[in-house]
Amino acid sequence: MNIELNSGERIDDLQRGGYGIIQNPEQFCFGMDAVLLSGFAWIRKEEKVLDFGTGNGILPILLAAKTAGRYFVGLEIQPELADMAKRSVQMNDLSDRIEIREGDLREADQIFGRASFDVIVSNPPYMNQNHGLTNPQEAKAIARHEITCCLEDVLRQAALVLKPGGRFFMVHRPHRLADIIAYMKQYKLEPKRMRLVYPFIDGEANMVLIESVRGGNPWLKMEPPLIVYQAPGVYTKEVLKIYGKEG
Amino acid sequence: MNIELNSGERIDDLQRGGYGIIQNPEQFCFGMDAVLLSGFAWIRKEEKVLDFGTGNGILPILLAAKTAGRYFVGLEIQPELADMAKRSVQMNDLSDRIEIREGDLREADQIFGRASFDVIVSNPPYMNQNHGLTNPQEAKAIARHEITCCLEDVLRQAALVLKPGGRFFMVHRPHRLADIIAYMKQYKLEPKRMRLVYPFIDGEANMVLIESVRGGNPWLKMEPPLIVYQAPGVYTKEVLKIYGKEG
Repeated sequence: MNIELNSGERIDDLQRGGYGIIQNPEQFCFGMDAVLLSGFAWIRKEEKVLDFGTGNGILPILLAAKTAGRYFVGLEIQPELADMAKRSVQMNDLSDRIEIREGDLREADQIFGRASFDVIVSNPPYMNQNHGLTNPQEAKAIARHEITCCLEDVLRQAALVLKPGGRFFMVHRPHRLADIIAYMKQYKLEPKRMRLVYPFIDGEANMVLIESVRGGNPWLKMEPPLIVYQAPGVYTKEVLKIYGKEG
Repeated sequence: MNIELNSGERIDDLQRGGYGIIQNPEQFCFGMDAVLLSGFAWIRKEEKVLDFGTGNGILPILLAAKTAGRYFVGLEIQPELADMAKRSVQMNDLSDRIEIREGDLREADQIFGRASFDVIVSNPPYMNQNHGLTNPQEAKAIARHEITCCLEDVLRQAALVLKPGGRFFMVHRPHRLADIIAYMKQYKLEPKRMRLVYPFIDGEANMVLIESVRGGNPWLKMEPPLIVYQAPGVYTKEVLKIYGKEG
């Protein structure tokens, strides 16, 4: 397929199903967090899946490669990223499974209707507006900082747009975990499954993967630690497997 | 010192400061959770420390051995356990540092007054009344199940009895983590530091150690995973060190 690349864009191989992704280091490149979330989420064939803040579409494309899901929607507020995502979907011939919508996740219940999805995934901005320097380049800043949406917006809208019993999968930073859980409880998205990601076995965690269920009963399963590096620069076998490189 | 042992009681060596502890397998024996909590908590010399539900006094005695703390109070609702704890304190010649009080932690604010402690530690009953079989032997049942107090009682009272800025250290089960954090937020005990305990590196966590600060700002540090066994039956070096056996 003939896909037009804009200035600064490149195509990266995803090592999955022959798929690639359009990226622009000036605007948005996916990170390990998206890859780990795509390995943590589980989706059944008939389920409708929505990605809150899809960026360049990395999560729907990885999930289309890794799961049986047949219907993914990626919602993205930034026009240039939504456009990049649309071209990646076309390039991968995934237009029958993935739809990219430009829009504001704070209005997701109005855009899609309440209780309209079985699963929501999200790799939202991590940084409070009062923590960390805001990246001067706007596209990156919006992807990383809570400028156009905050954690509470994400969870409030997830609770509205999910069907009862629907699942919400998110990757975030452990330093926000108390707020994450408090908001999940507030919006009746019960945390059911969690996995901490530790770069090294003897160091602090730097990511948390969490699955919650709309209206679920309280009982949290804390999965084995996910260790990223077995030595500096050397991924563990499990991380290689999640990346599709069976070491 | 001449300490009287009741029927069924024995004295176990704590491998710390020459201290021992009176236990009774029919009523209460301390577990790894108390030992790990004693390694997780930190206490300054001048601080007043209260243990909610001290059982046979294991936590104050371990903390007297491991920290600089000079003033510990252990509160226990069960008369026979409070008596056992008092005799262990006498036996270890710790009466100038540890006081055992028989009483109900749900009345701690009335017993001790509000904002009267710098630190609270607790290894409370883990089991919801609706989860798990209640042990038919009453003393064990009260120590393990939420019969005389529930998680919310512990956190409500901790918030009342702690000074502003005071620290609360608890060990609990990961399956309750969402409730723990939600109640901590509700009672303004901000979670600041957490450590997951995994029996094996490739298995689920079975304990969580958590430090919260009364009135603290939201920012949680997720410490390295604490792995208990390096092989079946073989403790890791870190756990041996916490037990005082520098393997």
